[in-house]
Order: sequence, then C-alpha cells, then structure tokens
Amino acid sequence: MIVVLESGIAETQIEEIIRVLHDHKFDVHRSTGVQHTVLGAIGVHPEFDHRQIELLPGVAEVLRVTEPFKLASHAFKREGSIFDIGGVKIGGPEVVVMAGPCAVESEEQIFKIAKLVKDAGAKILRGGAFKPRSSPYSFQGLGEDGLKLLRAAANEFQLKVVTEVMDKSQIDLIEKYADILQIGARNMQNYTFLKDLGKASKPVMLKRGLAATIEEWLMSAEYILSGGNQQVILCERGIRTFETATRNTMDISAIPVIKKKSHLPIVADPSHGIGIRDKVIPMARAAVAAGADGIIVEVHHDPDHALSDGAQSLYPDQFSQMMKEVRMIARAIERSIA
Amino acid sequence: MIVVLESGIAETQIEEIIRVLHDHKFDVHRSTGVQHTVLGAIGVHPEFDHRQIELLPGVAEVLRVTEPFKLASHAFKREGSIFDIGGVKIGGPEVVVMAGPCAVESEEQIFKIAKLVKDAGAKILRGGAFKPRSSPYSFQGLGEDGLKLLRAAANEFQLKVVTEVMDKSQIDLIEKYADILQIGARNMQNYTFLKDLGKASKPVMLKRGLAATIEEWLMSAEYILSGGNQQVILCERGIRTFETATRNTMDISAIPVIKKKSHLPIVADPSHGIGIRDKVIPMARAAVAAGADGIIVEVHHDPDHALSDGAQSLYPDQFSQMMKEVRMIARAIERSIA
Amino acid sequence: MIVVLESGIAETQIEEIIRVLHDHKFDVHRSTGVQHTVLGAIGVHPEFDHRQIELLPGVAEVLRVTEPFKLASHAFKREGSIFDIGGVKIGGPEVVVMAGPCAVESEEQIFKIAKLVKDAGAKILRGGAFKPRSSPYSFQGLGEDGLKLLRAAANEFQLKVVTEVMDKSQIDLIEKYADILQIGARNMQNYTFLKDLGKASKPVMLKRGLAATIEEWLMSAEYILSGGNQQVILCERGIRTFETATRNTMDISAIPVIKKKSHLPIVADPSHGIGIRDKVIPMARAAVAAGADGIIVEVHHDPDHALSDGAQSLYPDQFSQMMKEVRMIARAIERSIA
Amino acid sequence: MIVVLESGIAETQIEEIIRVLHDHKFDVHRSTGVQHTVLGAIGVHPEFDHRQIELLPGVAEVLRVTEPFKLASHAFKREGSIFDIGGVKIGGPEVVVMAGPCAVESEEQIFKIAKLVKDAGAKILRGGAFKPRSSPYSFQGLGEDGLKLLRAAANEFQLKVVTEVMDKSQIDLIEKYADILQIGARNMQNYTFLKDLGKASKPVMLKRGLAATIEEWLMSAEYILSGGNQQVILCERGIRTFETATRNTMDISAIPVIKKKSHLPIVADPSHGIGIRDKVIPMARAAVAAGADGIIVEVHHDPDHALSDGAQSLYPDQFSQMMKEVRMIARAIERSIA
Repeated sequence: MIVVLESGIAETQIEEIIRVLHDHKFDVHRSTGVQHTVLGAIGVHPEFDHRQIELLPGVAEVLRVTEPFKLASHAFKREGSIFDIGGVKIGGPEVVVMAGPCAVESEEQIFKIAKLVKDAGAKILRGGAFKPRSSPYSFQGLGEDGLKLLRAAANEFQLKVVTEVMDKSQIDLIEKYADILQIGARNMQNYTFLKDLGKASKPVMLKRGLAATIEEWLMSAEYILSGGNQQVILCERGIRTFETATRNTMDISAIPVIKKKSHLPIVADPSHGIGIRDKVIPMARAAVAAGADGIIVEVHHDPDHALSDGAQSLYPDQFSQMMKEVRMIARAIERSIA
Repeated sequence: MIVVLESGIAETQIEEIIRVLHDHKFDVHRSTGVQHTVLGAIGVHPEFDHRQIELLPGVAEVLRVTEPFKLASHAFKREGSIFDIGGVKIGGPEVVVMAGPCAVESEEQIFKIAKLVKDAGAKILRGGAFKPRSSPYSFQGLGEDGLKLLRAAANEFQLKVVTEVMDKSQIDLIEKYADILQIGARNMQNYTFLKDLGKASKPVMLKRGLAATIEEWLMSAEYILSGGNQQVILCERGIRTFETATRNTMDISAIPVIKKKSHLPIVADPSHGIGIRDKVIPMARAAVAAGADGIIVEVHHDPDHALSDGAQSLYPDQFSQMMKEVRMIARAIERSIA
Repeated sequence: MIVVLESGIAETQIEEIIRVLHDHKFDVHRSTGVQHTVLGAIGVHPEFDHRQIELLPGVAEVLRVTEPFKLASHAFKREGSIFDIGGVKIGGPEVVVMAGPCAVESEEQIFKIAKLVKDAGAKILRGGAFKPRSSPYSFQGLGEDGLKLLRAAANEFQLKVVTEVMDKSQIDLIEKYADILQIGARNMQNYTFLKDLGKASKPVMLKRGLAATIEEWLMSAEYILSGGNQQVILCERGIRTFETATRNTMDISAIPVIKKKSHLPIVADPSHGIGIRDKVIPMARAAVAAGADGIIVEVHHDPDHALSDGAQSLYPDQFSQMMKEVRMIARAIERSIA
Repeated sequence: MIVVLESGIAETQIEEIIRVLHDHKFDVHRSTGVQHTVLGAIGVHPEFDHRQIELLPGVAEVLRVTEPFKLASHAFKREGSIFDIGGVKIGGPEVVVMAGPCAVESEEQIFKIAKLVKDAGAKILRGGAFKPRSSPYSFQGLGEDGLKLLRAAANEFQLKVVTEVMDKSQIDLIEKYADILQIGARNMQNYTFLKDLGKASKPVMLKRGLAATIEEWLMSAEYILSGGNQQVILCERGIRTFETATRNTMDISAIPVIKKKSHLPIVADPSHGIGIRDKVIPMARAAVAAGADGIIVEVHHDPDHALSDGAQSLYPDQFSQMMKEVRMIARAIERSIA
C-alpha cells in the first residue's frame, strides 16, 4: 500500500499516520519528494480496508500495490493452464467449441442437436436443465430428466457436457451428469456458493458478471481456486454499457487482458454477448481472432420453435458456416479447431 | 407490441409477418403511413420473446408497449403504498431513518449503538448477522447469536429490526428476529429466491443491483408481489458507472422516477451508495430532499475499531448532525422525521 | 510515480528499469518488500506518459502519485474560492439561482421571464442566443439580437447574465453582453478553446462532459486557470450510464467530491441532468441539499409554446414552488437563498 | 410516433391528447386493446420533441417509430457504399489498412515509416500535424510543415493520406494535402463543424464519440451527408465503460450493428481503442474478423523515442506480424488484404 500525503503536511501529522500504520502491523518506508511525501506500507493483510488510511487527516490518496488475487495470476503460474476434460483440452493450442440449445426440451431435440454440432466439429454439448426465468409462466426446464437426456446425447456422439448449476443444492446432482459446471453471471459474486464450488470435483466455467470488472472476476476465480478446485475456466459474455443497440456490450478486449494477467483459460459466449442471432457469427469470429481458448454458442435444429432463447440460437447451416470461418481464423493465429 | 416495417417492403412480406403474429395468437391492427407501415399486435403474452418478430425479414424495429410489471405499477394502485411495521409507517408523510452498524459484533456494541441511534431519532435498527466477505479471512458475522442480540437491543430501545437474508435457508430463522428482510444487490435477480420471498410473512426491502435498470428492479419487485407478499420496499444504493472517484454512483434521480412509475416506497442507502464516511451526510440530505421515504445509514460508536465497513460508518456526533439536517430538509417538503 | 515490479524479477531486470527511469530524469527510491519490490520515481514531468514504463519487462503496474491538476486543487488553495460577479457572490454562503429560458425568442418573452425569475429570487438570467441543434430544421437562436435582448432584460430587473459561448470566434462578442461565459459539455475537452478562455476577461462556467470523470473535468478547469483566468465555476449536468429511464444520470455525489478535491464553486443543472420537467424540482432540491453553490434551471412563461426544450422548462408557479423549497433546504445546512 | 395511454384513462382525456396531436399536424390512428389504448401519430416532423406528448396527463409512454437518420440508413441505400479514393476502394471486398505514426515528427521519421507500412501492405498513411494535447508543455505537432512531409512521403511510396482536421479553419488547408479528413471523437457532435464538412470536397472519416450511441453516431454522419458530402467512413475507437483495465472498451459489436443499419463503410482503430501496444494486435484481428472494412493502426520505426503515443504504437516487426495475421483472417471471410 502506498500512502500519498498532502503537500504542506505538518511533521506531527506524518508521525501520527505512521503510528496508525504501525498499529495495523505495517512496515513503513518513507520517501520525501519535491512535491509529496510518500509512505510505503508493507505487510501481508489482504483483507485490510485501505479506506481506514484514506480518511486520516493529511492523506491525499492511498494506492493498493498488490493485486488482490494470487492463485489466478500469471505471477503465480507462468505458463497458461491446460485442463484435460476427458481428452478435450481447454487452454491448449486447440480452440474448443461448446454448442447446443439454450434448454434441453426433449430426447428428440437434444439428440438431433448433439448430432449436428458434433458433425460440425463441436467437442462439448451445452444445454440447460434448470431455467429460472424472469416470467413465472415461461418454460422452467426439465430438471434431472433434462440432465439425463443431455448426458445420453453427449455419450451417443462422444461429446462432453457443460450445464449450469444454480445453487449449492444442485452441485452433487449435476456433477453426476456434467463434465463442466457452468456458473451464471448473476452468481459471479455469490461468495458462499463460490466456496462450495472450491470443493467440487469438476471444472468450473465462471461467467463474468454484467457489471463486474476484470479484477473482480479474477477475485471470484480466486475464491474457487483457494477452496482447492484448480480448474476454473473464465467466460466473457458481455457487460452493461450505455449502448442500447445491443443487449450487452461484449468486451472482446477482456480476452487479451486476461491472457496477460492470468494463466486461466478464457472462453467467449457470443450468443449471450450480443443477444440476437444475426450478429452471433461475427462476434464468434472476433473472439477466436482475439485469442479466446473456446467459444460457447447456442444452436437449435429449429430455432423458430425453441422453448427458450430461439432468437439468439443459430440455425444448423449457420453453425456449419461459423465453424468453417472460425476454423480458418484459428489457423491464422497458429491454433486449430477440430 | 408495435412492429415497424421497413420502408418499401413487399405486400407478400407484410402478409407473412401478420401470419406469424396470428400464429402467436396476437390480434393485429395495421396502419399504413407515409414512410412506414406499422402493425399493432395486441394480446396478453407477458413472456413473449419479441426478438422472434425482430428477426423476421422486413421488420425494422419492434417496440414493446406494455411495461412488463403490473402489481408494482402506479397504474395498478394509484395512491402510494404505506406499510405499517409495528407502528412505524413506511411510505407515509414521515421519512423513516434506519441506522446501526454494518455487523453486530457484541452485546455491548449493539446496545450502545441502538441507544445512540434511538436517541437521535432513528426508528429501525440495522445490523448484519451473516457477512460473507470477499476475503475468507475477514470477520464473517455472529450468525444466530447476532440476530438475538439485534432483537434484544431493538426491544430495549423500542426499535424495529432490519437485517439481510442471504438465501432461502435463512428466511425462517431471520423472520423470527427481524421486522424487515433486507435483500442484497447481488440477489436482486435471483429469481428462485424472489419466489420464496413472495411467500415470506415479513416485508422485504429489495436493494437495486449494481447494473440493474429501474425497470428490472421493478420486475424483481413484481416477482415478490406476485408470490403474495404485498410489502416490498425498494432501496437505492448506487449503480456502476465509469466514474472512479466514488465507489458507485448513487442514482438520486431513481427516487422521483420510482415515485412516478410505482406505488412502492423507496429508501436510500447513502453509506453503500458513496462508500466513504465523509460524503455520507450530503448524500443522505440529497436523498431526503429528492423525496425518499426513508434512509438507511451505517453508524458505529467507534468506527475506527469496527470489525467491518468502519470507513463508511458515521461517528455518533456525525449521525446527530445528519439527523438535525435531514429533519429540516424533510420539513421543507412537508414531510417529517421523528 | 510508483513502479511495482513483478514478484520473482531478476536483479538485472530491476537495474534495467532503474536505468530507463534515470534516462527520463527521475530520482529513484527502491523498497524491497516481502512480496514485491517497489520503485518510487520522483521528478517533475507532468506530461510524462507512464505507459512507457508500464510496458517494460518485469513491471507489474505503474501508479501515478500526483494528481494532474494543481491550480484547481484544494492543496493549492485551502479556502473555497468566492467570485464576486457585480455583487452576486458565487461560492459563498448564499446558494445562487440562475434561471431563464433555453433560448431567447423575443423581447416580450425574455422580459416576461426575467421579471418572473427575479420576483421569485433568481440572481442570474440564463438564455441561449446561438442554438446549434441536432436537426438543421430546428430554431437556431437569434444570435447577437438575442444577446442584446438578454442584456436589456437583465438590466431592467437587476440580474446578471450567463449564456453559452460555442467557439473562439464568439468570445469577444459574448463578453460584451454576458457576465458569465457558459461552456457546454461537448466543448469540455476542446483544449484549444479552453486555452482561449484562459485569456477571457469574464468568469467561465464549465459544464461536465457526458463521459468525463471528475478528474478530467478538473483538468479542463486547470487549462483555463493556467491560461490566467482564475474564475472557473464547475457545472454538473449528468453523465451517461446504462439507465434509460432518465436522459442522463445526474451525479449528485460529484458535488461533495468536488468540494473535497477543489476550491472551485460547483453549480448543478437539474434541467439538463434529468431532461424532463416533472423531475426537475426534486433534483434541484437534492443538489442544494448536497451542497451545491448554485443551481441553473430552465423556466418559461409558456413552456407549451417554447421554441426549444419546452419539455424540460418549469412553469412559473413550479419555479416559485421550487424556490420556496430550496430556500428552506439551504437554511437546513446554514446557507441561504435570496 | 406511438403514444401509449394509461389504462383506465377517461374518454375526455383521450380526446384532449388527440387534439394536441392534431395541433402539431399529426394524423392520428387509434387502436383500443384489452389493456391499453394506443395512438399512432403519423407525420413528417423529424425535429418534433416527443417529450411534449410524454408530459400530457394520461400518457404512459411515447415510442418513436422512425429512426432519426435517413441518408445514412440501409433503407435509403440497399447495397453497401464503396468509396474510391484515388484507386483505393473502401467498403469493397478488400479490407484497407491505414497505418503510420501518431504525429509527423521529421522528414526522416515519416519517410522511414511510410516505407515500412507500404512494404507490409498498408494503402493509406496516417499521421497528425496538429496535436492539441492535454498538457500545454507537450509536443504540439509540426502544423503545415507536417502536412507537407506527410504528402511527400505518401507520394514517394504510392500511399493515400488521412489526417485529422480539428476545426473549420483547417479544412481548406488540410484538403490541399490529405485524401481523407479525419474527425476526432471529441468533435463527433460539433454540429456547426459537421455542417462545414458537408461542404468539403474530400471524404470524411468520422470517429465515434466516447459516450456516443451508435444511433447518435449515425445522426452525426447524417449531418455531413445532408450537407452534400456523400463520402462518410465511420471509425470505431472505443467507448467509456466502468472497466478500468483498458483505457476504453472497444465495441467490436458496433461493426455488425453498423453493417445492419447503414450502408456506410466502417473502420476500426485498435490503437486508441485499447490504448496500449501489447493488446493492439489481438484487437486488430478481432475487428477484421467481425467484418470491418478497414483498420487504422499507429506504427513507429522507434516507438521508445516517439514524441507522442509511443506506448500504443507498434514496432515494425509487430506490424508485419499483424499484417500476416489479418490477411489470413480476411481470407477466412472471403475478403482480402493487399
């Protein structure tokens, strides 16, 4: 922590500030500059509330030096993490495509879609079983039956499974059927839940909150990592800005920023990032071009009759076209897509 | 729903769009203007995903006509709601002050603070018993023991109690001790939890999410109301913007906007809205001046040694000064503070 | 400037970074902590681009220590500035009310409005003479004729005049008629224009840009101050956020923040901040309650037939009601309104 | 314009609203639905302030039907515009690369950089001659001498020239030397200047304002188009959001949105969008992948000694690497880069 003092501060005030820092068990280094005296306060107190120093008379500003996350940082682990999920490697040279419907609707639906995404090159099948919706009258998902169908369809076509876990009570159940536990944007800062996920045995894909900074997102990942679960995949899905032409603003620059700050793999979700079908493909291409380790895309064999989110689901031939394009883009940056 | 068609659209395309609207059970009125043909699609489908129409060829734009909330709207209930909480009326001419520490720390602490806020004119005692923190090493709250102390201190000084409920599993427990259930900003769109709160027997104070629009906030209130709990109090506590000089940007204009759109009472939380002690008082004054039905403020008898959020807690004499000022401001707009 | 080095950095890399800092004429202080080595780089280079250091290998982060503005800061001038504008003092105990139409439309109109705002207690008459509009077909203002009418009406009723200057070519002309030069939000970062205003002989009221941080706003004020014009009044008029229920989000918290950081007076513009008549009054009250040194409000004797911005102009009786309320609020914080 | 009335409104109120609409010369169509009565108000009043209707008693909401821009819209011109700038076509199948230094510094510098960007495949040379900076002590550009050098270097290597015009007084001068007039983000809503540009003889590249919506950006383009200059190129360069890890958030999704709404070409500026060298290349790739018609990139033969913006300028070998990558990406979407 760096404590910048006001110019013209009295020596007695400086001594009082140093005394308070000592009380909080910081070692203090003092540098006197032309314009400012600056105190370096060194100690290991990740939970220290720096506003306590900011409010002392004579303090102009307090700057935090250490990033609040460690296990998630590149300083902690130099090379990028690669997670092997039953043979599918996330974070390696291959860009992994996860695809499937918003919600599992029926056996016929999920088998049809699983086949078509597999044929086009996807490695992981997505699909929701629990769908709490903003309207209580909307389709709420098939529950455990949906999970069973999802697993069966994935097995039939040699795919892995990613699906959302809504709260602690679902972790055990979903671990029985899924290979990756997806955590939604609204749960990104649900700390008690993150702690529980730290003890889960399956990898976690953590979506970025709508109003979360990249640093806060990495702090949430840190929570899971510090609980003992080393397999956290980050997923960018758009942030909220003043722009209203798109549902969210997909922050493509988060991809190179995460690559610089962290060793964790990062995946992009253009379907939720842009929110409407006709712009999903350009955003999927942009994400791969920017260096994403994977993309997760909503696809439906019949979007016009999907029970949820049909408007942002790709048609089968659009998905094939997208795969063709992102495959060539991956090659341009010396990566590959199956 | 209003469907604006592209200029120069062919008659056959218009007919196809009308056909799709009929399929979705809408009555369709057609108006042909100089520049545009516009279709009015009338029907009762609150859960209809209007993007399905937006994607049809020939559609320029789709405008939703009805607000998605009803029970929360002023159209539903003309006069403002007043909730009587054991004699304390929220939403009436009196501006209610809720005050207390961030967290209950000990019997001595909560009794001292209860006495001082009561003496200054507060009607409701606030204090947290469960404190999931961003760092696992920080103080996590006293749990049920904290609730007991909070209730005892409130009873001793004839105060009501508001405290946060983190998830469904805590509702029954907290209803035993509290008069108002506070729902945090991060839970504002946790729909399964909102449904459970619709069945709770105590009033709910719903904080606005950091990235939530006013409309989304009212939709979350609607969820609770539609579950059968008619007593929802809204609480503004700041939104996230590009400004970094303050932790959040407290949206004071939400107060008159809510007063126009809804009959529900609205309270402001300047402590979390501004995040640092020296600016809490001006923001408390602004909230009352703008027409808030109450304010909730963090106060501690010894903020320098508070176990959490000391930096945004007022000193006792600051709280008294604030009460004096907001009392005069309330009078300026023909309201009162005890 | 504080340069935080990556943990585990090699000694030779540290030496290289120190060499580069010396090349840029910084004095370097080194502190070695448990987790990090930190370099304090001291020197007077306000224009130094710190990204040059951020990009060096081994650098984790660069923190700027000194605020980029000086003349505008409270450290430079401890007591708040008070500007005496022909007897009207801005920044003192009195809260000054500026009021008038969006645009000067005719002699009859401006004299009517001048009389009514004077009668209600305003000290300064506002009104636009040059109105570049988003549509080329809209009313564009009366130009110099408008300025003459504005001055005549102000003189008749012993008011001062504030009006907007759009660019350098208008400065001399407008200085002949106005007492305060208003600079619009879109010009806040027009640096060549700010330099010209530094040489103007009249006080400047600088509106905050829609996407400007408080720090950037103070930097723009610094530009004018450093040019030699010591009389800069700041004016908050709303920032752009994701909220769509209001045109802008008026940042009331900017008022106490500016009061802490700067000695310059700050005024609030609720008419543009909220953008619609029925919420102007609560926001005016909130601004005064938060400690604004003045408010500027659009008023029209006949808003329904105003040639511009009628929808955000107050009716005469609304303005009188507002004055009554803000007068009592000012008293609550030991200030006054005429 | 669609006027949604409050439910339960009296017939006399409806008649009064219709009367006001007729007064404003609108044709009114009335539809009575189950929950709401809706009025369609049809007429050609692009400058009408719809807040005048919003404030009438009984009005719940007013929805604007027609987009405020016409000449810029796809409805006006179905196929995408292609501008031929001395043989370089912008908006066609080729993705055009514009590159060069932030500022022209010397003959040697601009010739060196012109050669290297030409060799790597750029078609247009960028470089600033007038550089108003936030600090008055920084390098302010070479002025007309800079323009001469820029032109000479471009001619030597068969490149076209793009450079920024700061205000009206510079238009004639810069048209003598440049092929494209660049308009900075801070001037995007300077309407008097936009009008002047409508009469310019050279194509204009209009940068998006930091807080501008896509619709506002297109309205600014409309201003130039309606003045008679048909050649407007849009340039995305980042918007301001709450994220602080990047200087701005580059809105890649603006590219497909513009492609849907408008026939104008769109170019991306990753150097200013991301603001730091090490993330420029991934963002350049993302822009091309998303469908941009061009990119504009800062390159310097010696960024460590550049007089401005060195930290976001690419090294020569980085630029070559970038060109190799974007060339392959262009191919993936059936476009090309020289």
